[in-house]
Parts: sequence; structure tokens; C-alpha cells
Amino acid sequence: MMKKYIPFVFLLFLAGMLTAQNKKELTLEDAVFGYYKDLYPKRLSNLQWAENRDVFLFRTDSSWVIKNINGKTEKDIPLKLIRNITNGSISHMPYVRSFGYETIAFQKDSIVYFYNYQSNKFAKTVLPEKANNIDIHLKTRQVAYTVDNNLYVATTGGKHYAVVENSDKNIVSGQSIARNEFGISKGTFWSPEGNYLAFYQKDESQVDTYPLVDITQTPAALKAIKYPMNGRGSEEPAVGIYSPAIQKTVFLEKFTQAGPHHYITNLSWGPRGKFIYLAELNRDQNHLWFNKYDVASGKFIKTLFEETNDKWVEPEHPAYFIPGTQQFVWLSERDGFMNLYRYDTQGNLIRKLTNNPWVTLDILGFSKDGKYVFTLGTGQDPRQQHLFKVTVKNGNQKQLTVEKGFHQVKISPSGAYYLDTYSALDFPGKVCVKSTQNKKFNTILLKSENPLKDYRIGKAEFFSIKGEFTDILYGRIIKPSNFDPNRKYPVLVYVYGGPHVQLVQNRWLGAAPLWMYWLAEQGYIVFTIDGHGSARRGFAFESIIHRRLGQIEARDQMDGLAYLRTFPWIDKDRIAVHGWSFGGFMTLTLLTEYPEAFTTGVAGGPVTDWKWYEVMYGERYMDTYQQNPEGFKKTSILPKIKNLQAKLLTIHGYMDDVVVPQHNIALHDAAIANGIQMDFYLYPRAKHNVYGKRRLHLMKKILYYIMKNNQKP
Amino acid sequence: MMKKYIPFVFLLFLAGMLTAQNKKELTLEDAVFGYYKDLYPKRLSNLQWAENRDVFLFRTDSSWVIKNINGKTEKDIPLKLIRNITNGSISHMPYVRSFGYETIAFQKDSIVYFYNYQSNKFAKTVLPEKANNIDIHLKTRQVAYTVDNNLYVATTGGKHYAVVENSDKNIVSGQSIARNEFGISKGTFWSPEGNYLAFYQKDESQVDTYPLVDITQTPAALKAIKYPMNGRGSEEPAVGIYSPAIQKTVFLEKFTQAGPHHYITNLSWGPRGKFIYLAELNRDQNHLWFNKYDVASGKFIKTLFEETNDKWVEPEHPAYFIPGTQQFVWLSERDGFMNLYRYDTQGNLIRKLTNNPWVTLDILGFSKDGKYVFTLGTGQDPRQQHLFKVTVKNGNQKQLTVEKGFHQVKISPSGAYYLDTYSALDFPGKVCVKSTQNKKFNTILLKSENPLKDYRIGKAEFFSIKGEFTDILYGRIIKPSNFDPNRKYPVLVYVYGGPHVQLVQNRWLGAAPLWMYWLAEQGYIVFTIDGHGSARRGFAFESIIHRRLGQIEARDQMDGLAYLRTFPWIDKDRIAVHGWSFGGFMTLTLLTEYPEAFTTGVAGGPVTDWKWYEVMYGERYMDTYQQNPEGFKKTSILPKIKNLQAKLLTIHGYMDDVVVPQHNIALHDAAIANGIQMDFYLYPRAKHNVYGKRRLHLMKKILYYIMKNNQKP
Repeated sequence: MMKKYIPFVFLLFLAGMLTAQNKKELTLEDAVFGYYKDLYPKRLSNLQWAENRDVFLFRTDSSWVIKNINGKTEKDIPLKLIRNITNGSISHMPYVRSFGYETIAFQKDSIVYFYNYQSNKFAKTVLPEKANNIDIHLKTRQVAYTVDNNLYVATTGGKHYAVVENSDKNIVSGQSIARNEFGISKGTFWSPEGNYLAFYQKDESQVDTYPLVDITQTPAALKAIKYPMNGRGSEEPAVGIYSPAIQKTVFLEKFTQAGPHHYITNLSWGPRGKFIYLAELNRDQNHLWFNKYDVASGKFIKTLFEETNDKWVEPEHPAYFIPGTQQFVWLSERDGFMNLYRYDTQGNLIRKLTNNPWVTLDILGFSKDGKYVFTLGTGQDPRQQHLFKVTVKNGNQKQLTVEKGFHQVKISPSGAYYLDTYSALDFPGKVCVKSTQNKKFNTILLKSENPLKDYRIGKAEFFSIKGEFTDILYGRIIKPSNFDPNRKYPVLVYVYGGPHVQLVQNRWLGAAPLWMYWLAEQGYIVFTIDGHGSARRGFAFESIIHRRLGQIEARDQMDGLAYLRTFPWIDKDRIAVHGWSFGGFMTLTLLTEYPEAFTTGVAGGPVTDWKWYEVMYGERYMDTYQQNPEGFKKTSILPKIKNLQAKLLTIHGYMDDVVVPQHNIALHDAAIANGIQMDFYLYPRAKHNVYGKRRLHLMKKILYYIMKNNQKP
Repeated sequence: MMKKYIPFVFLLFLAGMLTAQNKKELTLEDAVFGYYKDLYPKRLSNLQWAENRDVFLFRTDSSWVIKNINGKTEKDIPLKLIRNITNGSISHMPYVRSFGYETIAFQKDSIVYFYNYQSNKFAKTVLPEKANNIDIHLKTRQVAYTVDNNLYVATTGGKHYAVVENSDKNIVSGQSIARNEFGISKGTFWSPEGNYLAFYQKDESQVDTYPLVDITQTPAALKAIKYPMNGRGSEEPAVGIYSPAIQKTVFLEKFTQAGPHHYITNLSWGPRGKFIYLAELNRDQNHLWFNKYDVASGKFIKTLFEETNDKWVEPEHPAYFIPGTQQFVWLSERDGFMNLYRYDTQGNLIRKLTNNPWVTLDILGFSKDGKYVFTLGTGQDPRQQHLFKVTVKNGNQKQLTVEKGFHQVKISPSGAYYLDTYSALDFPGKVCVKSTQNKKFNTILLKSENPLKDYRIGKAEFFSIKGEFTDILYGRIIKPSNFDPNRKYPVLVYVYGGPHVQLVQNRWLGAAPLWMYWLAEQGYIVFTIDGHGSARRGFAFESIIHRRLGQIEARDQMDGLAYLRTFPWIDKDRIAVHGWSFGGFMTLTLLTEYPEAFTTGVAGGPVTDWKWYEVMYGERYMDTYQQNPEGFKKTSILPKIKNLQAKLLTIHGYMDDVVVPQHNIALHDAAIANGIQMDFYLYPRAKHNVYGKRRLHLMKKILYYIMKNNQKP
């Protein structure tokens, strides 16, 4: 009997070993180029609803496919066809920019194509080679675009009209303003019917010039960029309204009440295209006026309401007009969380619609009849993201997405259906069409497989602790696949820490990039915690950082580390820290304020002194250096660099136009003056981060440095 | 008996140990700041003859002292007195700029003082704050100076006259031209009697602008410099003659025969101030015309002689007129070594005076009667430097300095005496007054002590090998004080390798900086060899590098290393290499052409591709990139960086206006593109090297890197 059993147990054991051995090793190259190597779960690419009907489009390897809500293919457009038209290659196919009225609009080089897939006819609008900021009004086939600082409109007839042509390069029209803060991502806004083009204009005459240097030319060439630096000259914004019919532009009256260098944000067209609504702020960003303007004359009509706050007001969403009404929904954090407020166009608050103690993220649409507004929000667990249906009349609210995790949702034009792409920590993902009315309706478009199932890869675990002010903080720990609680592991703390970002989310792999799993396989614990200031937690949690960036955030990180250090499998003498941008600033803050806690660090594209950062973002959180000298002094890394004990590498993109290289280079100047030895690297072609094939070099630079230097001297 | 002896031997042994233990350790800080810590032998500071009499001046800690040839003090001027006059501090005393006619001229801030030490009277000429390139004619007390690109003359009466005032910044007057090549170090030349001021002018309209960035300002500021890059637009030079009496300037006729962007070099005044002589070259630098011009009219009179060479002609010395004659001595390498040629002012070669198979370095002066010319040269051993007396009539030559070593000599106005400051490898140095006529005359002014006698410090040893083409190469090996031939030592090869420089010289410590002795004490062998291209070996030895910089030079270094590797005490697996500027280029050449030979390297301020280096120096050795594409490709580090195996740190001064930062940054761009990991550091305020208190940080950066990385991976 014994004889029989022994081989059986042995075989089982062997089988287990073989399985582990057969699993592939994830290389750092795999990890960095995971998207190109299909190591992230499949999604539906370029997925979007038509503008006018409840059909949707996505791209496969060979086609653009148009389907109805039941998943039935309405049209399959082979990429070959597109390639023939555009003389392009299959691997570099254009993305669909807009879609509706049986037409697909897309762009290749500087040509905009309109393809009617019913008649199989192509039309094209040829733009100048330097055309940029292309904005297509699909129904009228008008195309707005910029060349350098100027704005133009092209018609289907092939005619081009100058909207603004200014030889002074300081006057920039039709582009994003305020450096993409306040949710601004573009500078042109077609009216619903396409009879007007509203556009942002900024006057940068008072904005400083920062000298970047392009070493790919001989001799190296100056690339002077406009950069509004804290407490110094800033943009003067304006809004113009162009009427294609009469080829004339009217500028909106200037709102002087907000003072110089004020902000114009969140432009929205009234439903009939007669009025324009703007959220305008003073430079201090603590006073918002929601203003109504007359489109035809440009005249200021009235301020509908105001919002003020001791710290800051940060509108990031336009007014959403309720179909069939003269009322709109406004998103505001005025009660501490982002909630919905219903207003009429006279500025009367009709009703506060929601009263959630969690964050609404966006308004996705309305039902056609205007009865319901659909919102995206975290719900109770800030690591998740869900779709909600709110009754416009009384604010009744219902969560439509029921599966735990992170839902990315697109509402259909009618509001009756939605595309739901979702995943969770342990769930690779699914794409479905669902109904906003009928729980049972579910057309599954894609069930993603786990692309890592054949790889040896560790696990992310979530945890939560009480951080500063006893607020709950959420974190993530990644362990190697062969984790052994009896060993001692060195740690990498990966940190961001700044506003607008949340690192720990209940989505596939816990939202951690694959390189963290690679590092874990090298025998590391990779640790991340979202502290105060981070996104999706409400205004109080975020704004506690005001005028003292990095201070509370660093204490949260140290609280996280204290929790981690309670585990016996942590090697307390080998703690590294790494982050980029605000995370680079945090890395430096941690290494200079808690020097004994870390053995090494890598700070990428770091802010080192907020006086060198931009007006828009920087003054919101820090005020100006003139207003807050103590805060600037306390948060600057330069005077603290003498505290450094760890091995520290700082990295910068030499063409970084967000955190300019001065931050990093001046820090080294201070280090040198203090006799502090640090390491430095730069990526000559990179802007604020390193992408493309050079990213592997970057990740090797960072991770090899950490692994080499993460020990007590 | 035994009992008696044992303690005695033991005591001896103990005494020896105590001596070794009692010796001080030389810290790296001592080594780097040795000059300020009196760790280099004392010399006489600011030592110079009067212009008109055989008395000399030098500075002590408390005085300016004027002595006669017998060492008798003629005048002792307390620095306190100078301090009272200038409101300066003793520690920041001005240097004496010229001295004679009982007058000492010196400058403090932008004031030139004339101090008559017999009458004890001060006069001063106040210059504008931005005054630069100050050139004093002592006898007439006229002062030439520049402000920005323009040239002015001030008289003792306090009047200021504009010589050239040009609003076009591209026209630069009164400054050094040709980027200090051809022995040019200044741009103004008073005629002997001070009745004319000749000056160089350059038109930089066609010269590229290179963007340096100053990060000490907010925001970082562009510092655009003019930089003539290989094969691209260059300077157009001219010579103006200003007559203070009539306040008029005449420009010399342009010598068109030499083509565009030609060179004007080595301006000399004829003895009566009526003619000016110039050595002019074509841009190719292979054809020299020695030209005579009329001062009053600016007219070209004639070419006295020409010199041509397939490789290059490099005049670095003006014509030296023989007192009381219309003849001059010309220094030329036309026979392969620098020898003396006597010409008349019609261009007739009267006599070739010397025929030395070694290098004459300079002409120091003549005897008053014009019978003798005094030269400085290496003599037979190129590591030494000596004074020679040559009979003008027949070329008879006699070596005046007899002590082995390196003599720095100043000839008295009469030519009867000379100040001799000399040292040798094992001899800290001496300063004497000697006679050019009487061997026995010797006034000892200073005998330097060995300032390191209380320190544990190793020894430099000289050696020679046969290198490429079987030429003898001279080298230096520094060993630690406790050198043990049974141990194995890692090696640092310190390299320069380029023209105009010789590293191994028979002077105190073998001309090695103290940091090399510090590194030796850390258990290192520090190795240096002067290869082909280096100075003081003659034209053939130097010019073999033509159109292929780094190639032969690297082979010489490898020959040197092969010799070193024959010693059993060398750890062949731990060879590092370091150099700066051309030495940085050599470091990179060695690491990429002989990658298996080295484990680590540090390249400071390196040229990485000669196409980014300046016209004047670069085209002499490499021609233009258009003329020599293969040579540029072969010598560029960029395509070879993929060969790198060693750990490599490259360093650059961010304000480097000699080897612009593009060299270094573009090399990293190539490395990144090839997936090569390298290290980089920059010194934000530094130009072509790092001086002052930040130099300690630099030397730590370099030497710690070498010690940390000098091992096989």
C-alpha cells in the first residue's frame, strides 16, 4: 500500500513544480511594452456611439465595425478600404474622430476624410501641413483648425476662411488655454447646429519665455516656450464667436470684475445657440462667477451665481442643459463633495439634486425626454467607478452598474443604452451593451482573458489604514509570486501624492503597471498608498494640502510605511522611494524630511520649488510666492537637500515644458554648493515623461538604480 | 648580550612604525585645495621685472617688494597702503599689471591705479563698470579697454575716447580673435611709444549662436553665445590702428589672397612704429603669408615670406625685432622642429639661426646690444625646460640653465640677468637671479621646502617605451606610499592626449596634481603617458594625428597599458580611464574602441563629434566635416557608443562655451537610442571645467565613481 501512494504524492508534487517551471518569466521589456505585446487585457478599440442613433463603432485588427445594441453588425468596413483611400498602412490607421449620419470622419496626415458608409462615398477636406487642433462639425462637415497661433475654418466646398490671423505670436486663438487646467482640453466649440464657432483666445504678452534646447539640430537650437511662472505675468483670456455665414467674429465683453489674468473656463452653448455660459474665476481661484453672454452681440448679460471658497474653487465641468428645457445641471463641490444642482438660465437654483457623501466624476448624458441624468461616480468605495441614474425632477438616484470594480461608460444618444467596459482587481474585464431601463438587457461584446495566465507573476493586495486626521487611506501591496513570509523583502514605495490622481483603484491588477510586478518578481515588495490631496475623496480630503504641498502627503506616506513595517517580512533597512512629477517632488520631500527612513530614491521630472511651476495649477494649491513666502520656503527641496542621506537619482526630460528642467538642475546646483553627492540623468528628447521605445531605457535606469543602491551604506 | 640587543632592535622597529603612523593622511580636500593649504611648494608671487630697469617686484603676504639683482630691497610697499587706497581687503589684493618708471600699475574693480612709489603719489583712471580687456601703456599712462563689443581709450587726464563704437554686436573690437588660437590672448597692442593702438576686430555676423541656459535666474535665462562650428560660418577678422593724437582709426587693407574667414595672427609692431607685421593664414590653415602693412595709411606693402604644409601651419609667435636693427627673428616649424630664422624687413632670410632636433618654446628677449637672443626650449629631454642663449650673428647656442628639471625664466630688460624659478620631480624648487654672462652669479631668492614631508604620500616614477611608429613615449606611474609588489593594484589611466599639452614633465611631483597621490593612497596605480599629438615633441610627432583625432593617440595609450600590464602587481581586470576635454574624448574613444580593456571611465567636458567643435582648433586637426566625412565618422563617439562595456560617467559644465553641452547630451541621446546605460552629471554654473570650492564636489564625483565601479561586472 505504501508503495502505491508514494509515487502518486510524488507525481503530484512534480506536477506542481512543472507548472511553476513552465510558467514564463515576465521580462522588464514585456512589462514596459505590455500594451504592444498584448499583455494587457483586450478592449474594444476606438469604441464610440454614433452622434445621432443608438449604434456604435469600434475597431478590430481588420475593420471598423458598426453594430446595433443587440450586437448585430450593421456595417463592416475593411481597413484595406481606408488604406487604399489614404495611402496609409494597416498598422498606422487613423482613429475615428466622429461618427454619425452614416458618416465616419477621420484624419490622416493633414487631410480630414468624410466617409459615407451607406453610399460608400469619400469626401475630403485638405488642410495645411501645419494644421492642428482640428475640430470637426460632423453634420455640416465644417472643420476648424489652427496654424501656429491662428484659427481657420474649412468648408466641404474646400474653402478656407481665416477666423483670426494675428502676426503677433503672443495672441493665440482656437487652442486650449489655462494650460489645460479646469478641465479645458481644447479651444474651439461648435454650436449645436454648426452656425457658430466659439473659441478661446489667450494673450501671452506678459508670459515669460523659458529656454528649452533641442540638441538634435546642429548647432543645438533654442526652443523658447511660453511658460507662466508662479507669481509672474500670466495669460489674458478671451472668447470669440465666429459666424461662418457672415465670416465675422464677435468677442465677448471682458469680465473685469474678476481682475487681471483671470480665468475663463468651461464654455457651454445654450440649447438654442443664442447664449454662451462661462465659469470665470479670479487669478486667486477662490471666486467663481457663472456668467451668461449674448452670442450675437458678445454682451455680458448677467452673473447667474457665484461660488467662493477660502482655499479654492475648481470648476471642471460645463453646464449640462436638460433636453427640452431652459434648465441645466451644474456640478459643484460647494458642500464638500461633487453634487448636482439644477438651475434655470436666470440663475435660480431650482433644486439640489444629489447629496452624496462621495464624488460624482462626470455627467455622461440625459435620457432623450430629459427625465434622467446619467452620472459617473465612485459610489461608497472610492476605488470603484459606477454609473448612476438621477431623476431630474426629484433627485432620486439609482446605481446602474452592479458589478464590483471600475466601469467606463458611454451613454447612447437616446440615453436608453450604455456601453460598459469594466474590470476589477482580479477580473480582466468585459465589454457589454446594457440598458438604462431594463436590468436584464445585456449584450456581451467581449470577455477579456487574463493575458498573464502563463506568466509567473505576483499579486496585488489592497489594504486600508487610518492616516493623518484619522482619515481612511487606501493602499496596495504587490508581492512576488513565490512570496515567503519567512524571508525579508526590500521595498519600493511608489508615490504620486498630488491632486487629480488616484493610484489605487479596483480595476485589473489594481491599476498597477506591469513593471511593478516585474520588480516584485526580483524579490521586492512594491508599496503604494493614496494620501490626502489625491483624487476621488472630496474637497476636505484634497484641500488640506493648501499652501503646504507635500507636507501632509509625506506624513500619509510615512503612516503607510509604518503600517508596512509591522510585517515581519519587511527589510526595514532597504526602503526605496520613486515617483514622477508630483511624485518626484514627493520622493524628494520624503528623502529630505525623513532621511533616515530610506536608503535610495529616484525622482523623475520633479518639482523642486513651486516658484518655478506654472501659475494655473501652482497658484491654486500654493498661492503665489509673494502671498505665501513661508509655504514656499517650507516646501522647497533646495534648502533641505543638505539633509539627504539616501542615494538619489533625479531624472528629467530635457524638453520638459510642464516641469521645466530648471527644477532639477537648480536642485543639483544647491546639492553641489552643499557638498551633497547625487546622481542625475536626462532624456534629451523627452518632455514631461519618456514614452515610446526609449521608455525601456528609462525603466532600466530607474529600477536598476534602485536595486543596486537599496542598501544601508 | 642578547638581552641588550633585543630591546634596541625592537625600539628601532617601533620608531619606524611611529614615524609612519605619525605621518598625516592627505585628504581629498587637501589634495584639491592644495594651493590654498600651502601643500604646493612656495613660489614668488606676481614676480616680474620692471619695464625699463633690471629691478624686479614680487608680492609677499604683507607687501609688494622691489629688489635689485643682488637681492637688496629697493622698496617695500605694505599691502595696507594699497588697501587704504583701494578700500580693498588684504586677502583680495590686486595683482600688479605692469611696473617700471618708478610706477606700479594695478587694477581694482574698474579703476586703474598708477602708484609712483618714489613720490608715493597715486593717480587713477576710472573706467566704466563693464570695462574689460584693460591694456595699460605704462609710460604714457593711457588705458585701452572694451565695453561689450566696443573699444575705448582713456587718458591720464580722465578723458575717454571711443575707438570703435558699433551698435551691431556682431562687430567686436579690441578683444582676442580666433578663439585664442595661434597664441592670441588679447586684442589690443600699444605701439612701443604709445602713439598708436593697434587692435583686432572680428565680424561674427556669419557665426552661429549657441543657446546656453543660466538656471540661476528665475525663469532660467537664455545665454546665447557666438560659436563658430566646424564647416559653418566663421569670423571675418580685421586690424585697426587708432591714433590717440588725432582720435582717428585706420583699418589695414584686407588681404584677400587668403580667402574668406581667413586668420590674422601674431601682430607685431616694427621697431619704429611705422609698420605692422601680421602672420595671415587661409581658413584651411595650410598656407601662411607673413605680411607688412603701413601704419599711417593701412596699405598692404608686401608679403615677406610664405609657409605652406600639407597638414597645417600654426604660427604662435610674433616677429621679434633685434634691438638696433631692422631685422627680426621668426620662429618656425618648417624643418619639423621649432627653430629660429633671421629675416630682414624686405623678407630676405638672412640666416637660419638654430637647427635643433628639439622644440624651442619661446623667445624671451635680447641682450640690449642685440648680440644675443634668449630662448626657452626643452633641450634634448622633452620633459625638461631650459634657457638658451643664441648668438644672433652666427647662431651659436649655449644652454644657460644647468640644473636638471623645469625652468621658468624671465629675462631682465637689459638682457644681462634672468629670474629662474625651477623644480624637478624630486626637487620642490628654487627661485634665483642669475646672470646671462657670468655663470657664477647667483642670488638665491627662495628655496622651497617640501610641503608634503609630514604626509604619507607615494611616489611618481618616470618611464619610457616605444609607442606607435617606434617613437619614444614618456610616461609616469604613481604608486602608493606602502606599495607592495606582491599585491595587485587597480589602475586609473589619466589621459589628455591632444595637441598643445604635455602631462609628464620633470617638475615637482612629476607635474601630477595631488589628487593622483590621494588616489594612489587608496590603493591605486595612477598611470599617464604622453602619446603622439602631445606638445614639445616636434611637428611630425604632433601632426601624425591629422584628420583622424584619437586614433593614433588611443593606440599609444594602449601601448602604454600593455607595458603596465607586464608588471605582476597590476590587476588587469580593474583598469579605469579618466580625462577632461580632449582627454574626455580620449576616454570615450578608448572605451568604445577597446571596450574589453577597461572596467570603468569618467569623461569630463568631452568632445563627442568634431562637427560640434569650433572652426579654429577643429579644422586645423580635422579639416571640415565636408572635406573629411570619413574622418569625422570614424572619430565620432556616437556610432561607437553601442560598443560600450564599461561603466561610464560623463560630466559637463552646463555653461561650457568651449566644448558645448550638445557634445555630451547628444551622446546620451545616441546611447539611449541604442539601449546603452550610462551615467551623466552636470555642473550648472561651470564652464569648461569646475573650479573654486565646487571642484572638491567634482573630484569626489569622479574618483568615488571610479573606485565604486572599477570591477568586472
